[in-house]
Amino acid sequence: MQILMTKAAFGRVRERLSQVAPDAQVVAAVAADAYERDGAPIAVEDIDPEVVWLSLDSYASGTLGPLFGRLMKTAAPRWTQIMAAGIDNPMFRSIMEKGVRISKSSAQATPIAEYVVAHALSLQVPIRQAAALQARREWKTTPYREVARTRWLMAGFGNIGHEIAKRIKPFGVHLTVVRRNPAAEGDLADRVITLKDVQAELPRADVVVLACALNDETRGMCDDAFFRAMKPGAVLINIGRGGLVDEEALRAGLDRDQPGHAVLDVFQAEPLPAESWFWDHPKVRVTAHSSNSGDGNLGRGDELFLENLRRYLAKEPLLNEANPSEVGL
Amino acid sequence: MQILMTKAAFGRVRERLSQVAPDAQVVAAVAADAYERDGAPIAVEDIDPEVVWLSLDSYASGTLGPLFGRLMKTAAPRWTQIMAAGIDNPMFRSIMEKGVRISKSSAQATPIAEYVVAHALSLQVPIRQAAALQARREWKTTPYREVARTRWLMAGFGNIGHEIAKRIKPFGVHLTVVRRNPAAEGDLADRVITLKDVQAELPRADVVVLACALNDETRGMCDDAFFRAMKPGAVLINIGRGGLVDEEALRAGLDRDQPGHAVLDVFQAEPLPAESWFWDHPKVRVTAHSSNSGDGNLGRGDELFLENLRRYLAKEPLLNEANPSEVGL
Repeated sequence: MQILMTKAAFGRVRERLSQVAPDAQVVAAVAADAYERDGAPIAVEDIDPEVVWLSLDSYASGTLGPLFGRLMKTAAPRWTQIMAAGIDNPMFRSIMEKGVRISKSSAQATPIAEYVVAHALSLQVPIRQAAALQARREWKTTPYREVARTRWLMAGFGNIGHEIAKRIKPFGVHLTVVRRNPAAEGDLADRVITLKDVQAELPRADVVVLACALNDETRGMCDDAFFRAMKPGAVLINIGRGGLVDEEALRAGLDRDQPGHAVLDVFQAEPLPAESWFWDHPKVRVTAHSSNSGDGNLGRGDELFLENLRRYLAKEPLLNEANPSEVGL
Repeated sequence: MQILMTKAAFGRVRERLSQVAPDAQVVAAVAADAYERDGAPIAVEDIDPEVVWLSLDSYASGTLGPLFGRLMKTAAPRWTQIMAAGIDNPMFRSIMEKGVRISKSSAQATPIAEYVVAHALSLQVPIRQAAALQARREWKTTPYREVARTRWLMAGFGNIGHEIAKRIKPFGVHLTVVRRNPAAEGDLADRVITLKDVQAELPRADVVVLACALNDETRGMCDDAFFRAMKPGAVLINIGRGGLVDEEALRAGLDRDQPGHAVLDVFQAEPLPAESWFWDHPKVRVTAHSSNSGDGNLGRGDELFLENLRRYLAKEPLLNEANPSEVGL
């Protein structure tokens, strides 16, 4: 069995890989046009991997992209481990159309959950108010509404949603999650609803988190009616996709304090144009699609690939395998 | 059995109280010199409570202080539920000397834990860096060291320490707690050490939280040697007592980046004098002994009193009962 990965990735996992798949033959990409097998160059024509690992470093370096595109036209691999959490990019549909299995990444769920909780807490606990008092050398208490007993509404309950729930539930919040299938597992949630019941829950939600996939059902789900139903002063946090939000409706909502704050890591247009109104809106925090920028992704990504390779060889279900229905197949 | 409490507190718990202690006779303090029993005035001479509940509102209103002082000179109550978490004030020693049982409050542990975690996360997740980029309309990722796998060292593992641990452990941190008794329960902690081993742990700790009582053992525990042992850039959070810290040693430590940030809710002198260097030190966050200022304290305090009253009547151990050794008896 041939496995294609970057040389850097191979260097990181070589030893562990030999435990999991002692018979695997690794083709390591040195650059976008240079490949090695057993340390010796190998011609592109001889590369026919059963498994492709698009590790995080392969995205950054662009080492595997061209070859992967070529492979998809000729001998497609059977399984590809990707390092994206979302597969709304049309590329993934065309890959899955060819019958290639795709498993998504959960590696970034950790920093994204840290981002969501850190931002939410920083808007609830009076950190900024205390800083303003400190600047005036004023000794004064800052009464505040506790995070405990606030209500959270989270759209999406995949890896990212679970990591958020794990961290916020011990604060004593009430968590409602929105899933396609209301009977699906929701152990960390107090309540599971479907998209059609969101409107009724919005007036009670103090924090609304968008952690769902972008698809035909969810595109533009945060529209004018959505914002008009929000509890005044509530916080909206979008770490999903920009396409989930009607940005003009959000702008009008902010004027009414529905929501009172928006923490946005994703936008319809990325990079966000310099002339966008988001940049200097006083109720908006803009981050550059970088809620995922933690330093633990590479290590978790390696572990995920190795575990999924073990499962692949043992014919066990892969972690985070994409279902064709997710891309409309 | 006579129970003394404020009229406001009685109003809040009357119904629940009649379930827990149907035979209790409540003396309700209307003001510092006006008391009622069954809605009719009662003379101070006739007040001889077995139980005194110094509820949170009694502190704020000063309604019970004078009478409580007088009671301590004459017929002392058998048990007093206080609303402070720490009993380092010498007053509590003199009360316990008379054989009065004291149970402390855990009501404020919730907001204090929210404070600690919110401040710690806000210094780790790049919120301020992102705000600076936003102000420049700059689309740029902000790589950062994740909270996951950081090491926390927490002095004290009472109610507050437990509430902090409950909230921070799900982030995947390594938590070492410092307890008097290393064999004491430490279920949420990865490691339990005693004060003598703190020096050895400091070089590895990313976040150091002071959540312990102030007593002869802990007074000035954060001295020059302590700060010199700290990991450069680490965060110190003090929600215990100002007396735990040698403030001049801290100042010298900040100059060396040991710690890199100090989040201080308590000080040797409170209110912090206007001329204090703390106010405008760029590495210091000052808050006005108000980490406890959540809106849920009153409700939790009521529940705690009622539960402890039930236990008192059933001769079960009280929650948070102070041990005479805590005040050196």
